[in-house]
Formats: sequence, C-alpha cells, structure tokens
Amino acid sequence: MDAEIIAVGSEMLTPQGLDTDSLYLTEKLNNLGIEVRYKTVVGDDHDRLTNAFQAALKRSNLVILTGGLGPTEDDITREVVADVLGRPLREIPEIRSRIEKRFQRLGRDMPPNNLRQARVPEGADWLENPNGTAPGIWLEQQGTVVILLPGPPWELEAVFESACLSRLARLSGKALIRSRVYKIVGLPESEVDRRIAPIYTAYRNPSTTILAKLGAIEVHLRARAASQEEAELLLNELGDPIEAALGDHIFSTRGESLEEVVGMYLTMKQQTVSVAESCTGGLLSERLTSVPGSSGFFLGGVVCYSNELKVKLAGVPADLIREHGAVSKPVAQALSEGIRTRAGASIGIGITGIAGPSGGTPEKPVGLVFIGLADLRGAVVREFRFPGNRERIRYWASQTALEMIRRRVRDY
Amino acid sequence: MDAEIIAVGSEMLTPQGLDTDSLYLTEKLNNLGIEVRYKTVVGDDHDRLTNAFQAALKRSNLVILTGGLGPTEDDITREVVADVLGRPLREIPEIRSRIEKRFQRLGRDMPPNNLRQARVPEGADWLENPNGTAPGIWLEQQGTVVILLPGPPWELEAVFESACLSRLARLSGKALIRSRVYKIVGLPESEVDRRIAPIYTAYRNPSTTILAKLGAIEVHLRARAASQEEAELLLNELGDPIEAALGDHIFSTRGESLEEVVGMYLTMKQQTVSVAESCTGGLLSERLTSVPGSSGFFLGGVVCYSNELKVKLAGVPADLIREHGAVSKPVAQALSEGIRTRAGASIGIGITGIAGPSGGTPEKPVGLVFIGLADLRGAVVREFRFPGNRERIRYWASQTALEMIRRRVRDY
Repeated sequence: MDAEIIAVGSEMLTPQGLDTDSLYLTEKLNNLGIEVRYKTVVGDDHDRLTNAFQAALKRSNLVILTGGLGPTEDDITREVVADVLGRPLREIPEIRSRIEKRFQRLGRDMPPNNLRQARVPEGADWLENPNGTAPGIWLEQQGTVVILLPGPPWELEAVFESACLSRLARLSGKALIRSRVYKIVGLPESEVDRRIAPIYTAYRNPSTTILAKLGAIEVHLRARAASQEEAELLLNELGDPIEAALGDHIFSTRGESLEEVVGMYLTMKQQTVSVAESCTGGLLSERLTSVPGSSGFFLGGVVCYSNELKVKLAGVPADLIREHGAVSKPVAQALSEGIRTRAGASIGIGITGIAGPSGGTPEKPVGLVFIGLADLRGAVVREFRFPGNRERIRYWASQTALEMIRRRVRDY
Repeated sequence: MDAEIIAVGSEMLTPQGLDTDSLYLTEKLNNLGIEVRYKTVVGDDHDRLTNAFQAALKRSNLVILTGGLGPTEDDITREVVADVLGRPLREIPEIRSRIEKRFQRLGRDMPPNNLRQARVPEGADWLENPNGTAPGIWLEQQGTVVILLPGPPWELEAVFESACLSRLARLSGKALIRSRVYKIVGLPESEVDRRIAPIYTAYRNPSTTILAKLGAIEVHLRARAASQEEAELLLNELGDPIEAALGDHIFSTRGESLEEVVGMYLTMKQQTVSVAESCTGGLLSERLTSVPGSSGFFLGGVVCYSNELKVKLAGVPADLIREHGAVSKPVAQALSEGIRTRAGASIGIGITGIAGPSGGTPEKPVGLVFIGLADLRGAVVREFRFPGNRERIRYWASQTALEMIRRRVRDY
C-alpha cells in the first residue's frame, strides 16, 4: 500500500506556510509499513484541488487529504471529493445533532454554515472528531482508500488515532519501516558516495539516501520488514559494511549532534574543555553548552574580538599579535594554551580567522581560519580555508573544532 | 504566470522531512507577482518523478524542481527532465572544467561521478553555482519555463538570485505582490491581535497574518498591486495605524533581526558592548557577532559557566557568589559591571540563570534568569521566569538581553 498526502490550504503556499500535518501522518503510516510516495500542497481552489486529487487517484491506492473541511465557503475538500468520485453529498442527521450539541455545550449559537460539515459523500463512512466540529471521512472506490481529515493538528491526530489507525493496519498487512542515520564529518559527499555506492546499490531494501548538511554528510537507511527484529537485521546487513567503509568519519549513528558526541566523550573520559574564540564569536561555546549537563565538561570561554581582549582575557602575548597578526598560527596556539591555563581545563581550544564579508586580504582571505588545540601532550594548530558566507564559515569553524576535540579525546 | 515547485528527495517523505527551499522560492516569486499554485514532494525515484513532472507540465507554465542534482546515483532530476522533454544530456566542457578547478582549489581529487553534474539537457542554459559543483538549469519548452536548482539552500539561493530573478522578472509581467513584516517584542500574540484586529479586519488587500515565533511576534501584510508604488500605498494605509497601535514594541519593519537592530543602534550612537554569560553559554555573543561589521561595536565577552571563572574572568567577588548564589541579582549585576570594566566597553551585560533541564530548586526553578546591564549611568538588573525547555529559555534570555540593550541605547 502506497500513500499520498494532499494538504489543502492557500496559507501553505505563502512564504511562511509549511505542511507539518504530513510529518505526523508519515510517522504513523511508516509504523504500519506504508510509504508516503507523494506530498502535494494545493490552495483552496476548486479546479486545482480537482486536478491534484485526480492525479493522486491515478497513482496511489491510499490518498489522504488534510484541511479544507471547515465551515466556510473556502473550505472545499468535501465538495471536490464528492464531485470527482461522483458521489453526491448527503446530510447525516447524527453529525448535525452532534454539531448542534457541541455549540450548545459551548453556549454559542451555531452559524448556519456549520451545517456544511454534516454533509458526507454517498457511501462514505464519517469519522468522529472529538476535538472539533468537522468529522473525518473514509471512503473506498475501486481499491483505493480515500481519507479526509481536518487540518488543525489536534483534530487531525485525534481522528486519525481513533478511527484510521487500526483500520489501516488491517488493510496494510504486517510490514513496518525502520530507519538509521549515519552522520559523517571530514569527507565530501562525493567521497562518501564513492566509498559506499558499491555497497548500497546492491540493496533496494533497505533504501539509502545521502544528504549534504551544513558541516556533515548524512546517510539514511530505511528498511521495510515484517517485524522490528527483521528490520534490525536488514539495517545491520547493509549498515555494517557501510560503517566499515566510512570508519571513524562516522560520528553518530543514532541522530546525536557532534556537540552531543563530544560532550559524551569528554564526560566518559572525565576531561574538561574551555575555548577562546575570535571569528566564531561564541558559537563554539554556545554549541557545547546547548548540551544538557554541559556544566560537567565545559568550564567556560572567552570571546575576544579585539586584540586587546585577546591579550587581557586569554593571555596572548601582545608581541605575537604585532609580529604575526591576530589571524595566524601562533596566535591560535597562544589562545588555546592561554585559555587552558586560565580556566584550568584539560583541553583548550583557540580559534582565529576571517569570517567576512569584509576584512580579507590576498594573503589572508575571507574563510582563512586557524584552530589550535592544547592539552597535556602539547598543542596542535591547523589551518583551514572554509567556503561560503559569514554564517557558513563560522559554522564550519565550530564544527571542525568539535571534530578536533572528538578525535583527540577518543585517543586518550 | 503560475508557478509550481517540485521538491525532489526521499528524505522529505520521512517523518522528519520538510521542503523548506520552497519557502524561499515562494517569497521571491511573490515579489515578482508570481503565485505558487502547487507544491509537490517526490522521492528519488525515476517513475514517480516522471509522473509528478508530467503532471506539472500540463497545468503550470513555470515549473521549478529543487534537489536531485548531486553527483550520486540517486540524484535523478537531470535525467528525468531530459527524458520527459526528449532532450538528451550533453556534457558541457566549461562546467566540467569549473568542477575540476573547484576540487583543485580545495586540494582534493575529483571523484569521477561528479562529472554527471557537467551534463545538461540539449538546448538548455546552465546557471553558474558559486557555492557548489551542481549548476542550475533553465529551459523553455512550448511556453513553459522549467528551472532545476540544487537542493542545499545556500546553493539554491545563490543560483536563483544571480541567474533566475531578473530573467523571471522580464517574463512575469506587471502585477506584483509586496509584503511587509513587523517584528514585535514584549507583547503576547493575543495582545497584538487585540490591538490590531479592529484595523486589519477591514482589509482583504493587503491580507494580514499574525505568527508567533520564538522570542517575537510577527505581523505579515501582503499587498497585490499593479505597481510598486500602488503596493506601497496599500501597505502604508494598513501599516500606519498598525504601527501606531503597537508603538515601540515593533523593533523591525524590514525583516531585520533584533541583533541587527541592536548593532545598528550601537553603531549609530558609537557605543560598544561586552557580555558575561553564564546560562546562555555564548549565545548572546554569537548572535551579536553574527552581524557583519560587529567588530565595530562588540569588543568581546566571557562565558563563565563555573563559579571560579565568574571570579577569574569577570571579576565577580567570590563572597557575593557564596552569599547569594551564582544565580542571583547581585551576581548578574557584578557580571555586567565586571565585564564592562575589563573590556572597557560602554555597556556591559551579565546573564546568570538556570536553563535546565536539571539544576532547578523550589526557590530557584528552571527558567529563572537575571540579566544585568551596566553603563555610565549605573546598573539595572531584571529578573525573569522564561517558559519552555533549555533551548527556548536560552533563546528568550538572549532575546531579552538584546531588547534591554535596544531600549537603553535608543534613549542615549
């Protein structure tokens, strides 16, 4: 059984509009082993919704329409479905009396247009809505199941859970879908693909998707199986050689962020970190302290934008800045050593660079970043040229610093 | 001209997947007077994308496909478009050499599968991508414009701005849509609506939407008009009384973030700021330094998670912490005064609080935050109870600190 979701509502076609109901539905459907193959957003327009619904009927055997079941003139989902399927709308007395009672209970008069919500296409089942006046609708035609659900999430979820879930489970058989996400740092997307394509192309189940996110590549595996155990076996069968091919470039297999992984490593090894940031402006501290419990491994840091504060707060020798410039290998090293000593941390990180948009020169262009790491064993400094705009350069610098910590702490 | 957007990528059909590229595109298209009529999400599947693309060609005269232009086997947008339109793919030597040069610049070998990105359907224009290896593609067939854009937002936006915007403006004719966004801080959504509903309900054009964002309420006005001037008149007619009703709670009318507004005020008044953060962990520094040119008004800051670093880096008297606790009014004040003196800034900000999830007590619950502001005139400290989880509490604290700076500097 393959599903398709049509979200109806002009507000979802504006620059602020997202169809988030479909995320809830996708999760519930996946748990029943049903894949969502298409999602469409269409406005409150009779002809366009007709077009979208007709296209869906041709290619999917489960079509779920969300929204457009309200009481007002621009709520047209019921009418369009009735027209396309050739099933006239009939008023159901029981729905009518429920809507009337609901208004009585709230002590309000029922506006006459609410009666539109009591109309259901001929031969369809209506699905009780405990949280609103619009019932859901279920109908089957030529082997295709069509479900209409109200748009507000609390209404949609209540109707779906109580009236659709078990009914769909009976129709869909036993399969379920489980997924695994590998997060990878330090390899470009094409190199990840070069290493693992020979492995994953042999499988249609699990399916594999590679995604380039800012600072990381993600490999998503999705297995379809009759049971949780079988799904795990399939994920391991494909996942194990993928893990071997990507090695320690994989920093996460359960969705954790890089800062969470670094936090776990530091906590596990009972190490602490402190940071002296220039171009990242506090981003590295912010990411480390976004992890709950970070007070156990993060002591603190300084954001030293001005040269004066590099000297004052992180103890960088003023001579060093004069001689090499603030953006230089020696200053990155001095930042990492200075903050480590001042904070009394196991590891000190120093970051200095040019995030742009201005401030670049031919010798020191925008994107040039030095990252120093100091610990008991000494200091290392690495030089990077990060691409992109200010925001991306800063993010890459913080990501790379986290990765340097991860690799260092892992070896302790 | 009516647009339709097809987002290609199986990850957007999972319970975590949203098509957010379409929001950016919708805004840009609306600015050209082009409405988006359908949005479709489809997986990396040849037959299904073929089906979705064919349906779009039949009903829209501008079809934009996003994603699926990567170097890997599961990136199929180029192939499907070429097949459906009957235009074989040809390798373009100039794209090939650009991709090769990009890899040389980054000091990496080009995997052979990247060459797939140099292939373009016959008769199509390719659109330079400054931020990645996949060029965009523009082609016209029987009066319909088809545009292919890379999926990562920084690549999509760069290609669209530089190669599509002005070309579409020439095609789209004269009707246009202009919008205005008021950002409001310090009033709840219901109070904003109470104040402005009597004003906006009298208008269908411009239309009005109120959105609750983290840390701010936004009021969006959308006007449709034949000219820029007419649209501005409409926006002013509705916007002027809205501005009067919301007063100085409006911090932005042109989309600026609160940190950008604070940066402008500080620059204008030639003031500088430095911050000592505890529970916000660097977030306030990070937000201030995210503004290009922030080195002109931001000197630096300290992130003092441990009590020891509050003393060492921000000069908080150890007695004060012993007597009142680290999360207290006097410590917030000492942080603001200490960092102001050490950094030599016009304004010092001190933040101390309990972001959770653990660390709360009945007297000092999770969400309790003290924010101090010190300047030449003296110090003020305010106490807050922010709702929500760790992330939301930290964001609210940084937002409120920015708002305190905005109000203080405005009065200078």
